[in-house]
Amino acid sequence: MKKLAVLGYGTVGSGVVELLYRNHRKIADKAGDDIQLAYILDLRDFPDSPYADKFVKKIDAILADDEVTVVAECMGGTEPAFTFLMQCLERGKSVVTSNKELIANKGAELLAAAKAHACNCFFEASVGGAIPIIRPLHRCLAANEISAIYGILNGTTNFILNQMLAEHMSFADALALAQQLGYAERDPSADVDGHDACRKICILASLAFGKHVYPESVHTEGIRSISLEDAYAADQLDGAVKLIAFVEKLENGKILPAVMPMFVPHENMISRVDGVFNCVEVCGDAIDKAYFCGRGAGKLPTASAVMGDVIEAVKHHKTVFSQFWVDAGTQDFVAGLDALKCGIFVRFAEQYDRFLIQRSAENWLRANGETGWVVPATDNAFKIDFLSLTKAERDSLIAALEKDGLKPAVVLPVLSDPCAE
Amino acid sequence: MKKLAVLGYGTVGSGVVELLYRNHRKIADKAGDDIQLAYILDLRDFPDSPYADKFVKKIDAILADDEVTVVAECMGGTEPAFTFLMQCLERGKSVVTSNKELIANKGAELLAAAKAHACNCFFEASVGGAIPIIRPLHRCLAANEISAIYGILNGTTNFILNQMLAEHMSFADALALAQQLGYAERDPSADVDGHDACRKICILASLAFGKHVYPESVHTEGIRSISLEDAYAADQLDGAVKLIAFVEKLENGKILPAVMPMFVPHENMISRVDGVFNCVEVCGDAIDKAYFCGRGAGKLPTASAVMGDVIEAVKHHKTVFSQFWVDAGTQDFVAGLDALKCGIFVRFAEQYDRFLIQRSAENWLRANGETGWVVPATDNAFKIDFLSLTKAERDSLIAALEKDGLKPAVVLPVLSDPCAE
Repeated sequence: MKKLAVLGYGTVGSGVVELLYRNHRKIADKAGDDIQLAYILDLRDFPDSPYADKFVKKIDAILADDEVTVVAECMGGTEPAFTFLMQCLERGKSVVTSNKELIANKGAELLAAAKAHACNCFFEASVGGAIPIIRPLHRCLAANEISAIYGILNGTTNFILNQMLAEHMSFADALALAQQLGYAERDPSADVDGHDACRKICILASLAFGKHVYPESVHTEGIRSISLEDAYAADQLDGAVKLIAFVEKLENGKILPAVMPMFVPHENMISRVDGVFNCVEVCGDAIDKAYFCGRGAGKLPTASAVMGDVIEAVKHHKTVFSQFWVDAGTQDFVAGLDALKCGIFVRFAEQYDRFLIQRSAENWLRANGETGWVVPATDNAFKIDFLSLTKAERDSLIAALEKDGLKPAVVLPVLSDPCAE
Repeated sequence: MKKLAVLGYGTVGSGVVELLYRNHRKIADKAGDDIQLAYILDLRDFPDSPYADKFVKKIDAILADDEVTVVAECMGGTEPAFTFLMQCLERGKSVVTSNKELIANKGAELLAAAKAHACNCFFEASVGGAIPIIRPLHRCLAANEISAIYGILNGTTNFILNQMLAEHMSFADALALAQQLGYAERDPSADVDGHDACRKICILASLAFGKHVYPESVHTEGIRSISLEDAYAADQLDGAVKLIAFVEKLENGKILPAVMPMFVPHENMISRVDGVFNCVEVCGDAIDKAYFCGRGAGKLPTASAVMGDVIEAVKHHKTVFSQFWVDAGTQDFVAGLDALKCGIFVRFAEQYDRFLIQRSAENWLRANGETGWVVPATDNAFKIDFLSLTKAERDSLIAALEKDGLKPAVVLPVLSDPCAE
């Protein structure tokens, strides 16, 4: 029998408890041992809970109980979660967390502490909710040099963007609906301004490339500037606007992580990921590419990922897994957005003649020796895909359009097949 | 330093050797130890190979070398692979295999031997090529009760079906092209008759439900009967014909595995998986559903999965992972195809009036108290989805159509969202 403590009895924490009791026998089978819920830490009172006797308000009882082998942290936020987990690790207790803010900011420290004390720090639930991505990336794809990771890592924004197009809603109305359905918080900025996706791509980038990438180093844009007109125009051009979090390895050895709305052509499976689903594409030198899709949030989906880690921690308590990265002491290895090469999607605020748009863009291409394919939408937008334009080239193209009297309202990078490059 | 032996220097085996040397440093980092290729077993001579000094023709040298910790089997076929791997396991050497025929037929015995000798038997490469599916299913989703697994597990047939529609080719021409491109063997029956997909669903079913499902217990159909007309009609009805391997848990506790061509509506991501890609959908009580997609075959993609297992076996040599199932002594827990409930896709050999088709099918629905939605194609096909018809009901519907003078040429089950049921 192994004792488990759960920190935080919110959506995820209560899901972990529910799942443990619901599938208790299956979980014991997989873990090779019975897992007993010993403590739930929460400042609130739950007098009517069937687990009322397990609630504690201070971490001390958990730290003092040597029989607690695994602690699952589902509180969210950096503090006091960080202090609590460091205290657990120092006592040789393995920790499992669903907390992306914590891992994105303090991952290197937690992993070093786990290693120093010969126990494990797992965080499968911190990225992609139910989707197995941390362990597959680190273990199954271990023999690959990873060249890029791209994906939809925030279900709330994906729901909003979908809803806009499917139901002809404005951003504001779609956001209000997401809040009504419980997909978005009352203060939606962590989702719609891209911070949540940024934390997740920091975790994936750190894991894939071995050095801690901090959120402050990552260019992060949200979707507040995306309008229904953009969604329409993208659809006309056989694609969709998606909030994409990505990291690419550049030829100079640096990595380029970013979060931003992009035009994703329908050839890419990611463009068709709907609703609150997440999808991650991983590019490696042996696998070419692999996709992992599923529910990126929610009570039981996230609890599934937490419990998978708890089972692993119980089963292999003293095996230290090498899921690991270090603080490199600098963020010099992180490139800025200037290094991004991509195709371009442009929507104009006014209605121009489509042949005028096409001619202007093609003139620029010809003058610059590029052989891209300008695809105009029926009205006021166009895309050029299958072409890698530098930042300077994209700026020059926009300047040329403006010189021809065409005023771009929204300019988005095109996500071609990132693995094909 | 840990010694590795590779059995078989065909496509996969030579890919494993290539990948080991190409990403040697990364692999050593991940394994926490240097992996040295000590032996390659092959009956053929490779005098010009840079690894010529490592070739052996008999297993004895490998068995006798106590420093060989991991053996990667890439020979294919049940024998002598089975005998070799049992001998390795009996000597405490962990084994890794890409051989689906072997695991589908002898998995329970190999896993029991690994457990008895406190070493590991890994087989990530046996299903889905590069796609991480065995470890995610077993570990990451360990807390879930699995209700169904559906997918495209054979890239060759998926390529053929795609090619038929995209290039207006007959089955025979598309098969010839697949052979020319090296996607299909000269004797293509393992692929086109469904045996390869059958072995893979046996492995997934055994792993998910804990009892060995043998290929002989699985209803297996291939795609030889699928014509260009079927592909067209499916496309008209907003779907695609795909060779689907699946296993479902039934209400009576039995499981229903099968391999057969199905009509997959475009709402399901699986319908859009093109070319030689594979895609597996897993349904569980906590995750709802998750998708895993990637290259299902090929030298380096398969080698990636083998090396991922080799790294794990080196890193955790004496940890016995619980990836496990038993021979239940009977296949009574496996249900036959009669238990399948599904919607239906019907294509007629002759051109009938579409309203005649629709009226005939709707009359049957009304007479049987069903409220399905009959969707006719512009010419000679229709589908009824979002409805679960039993085998008897499907037969009764077909009989009713025939009584109205409508002769079905091809009848396929509809794959609705298997997780939604």
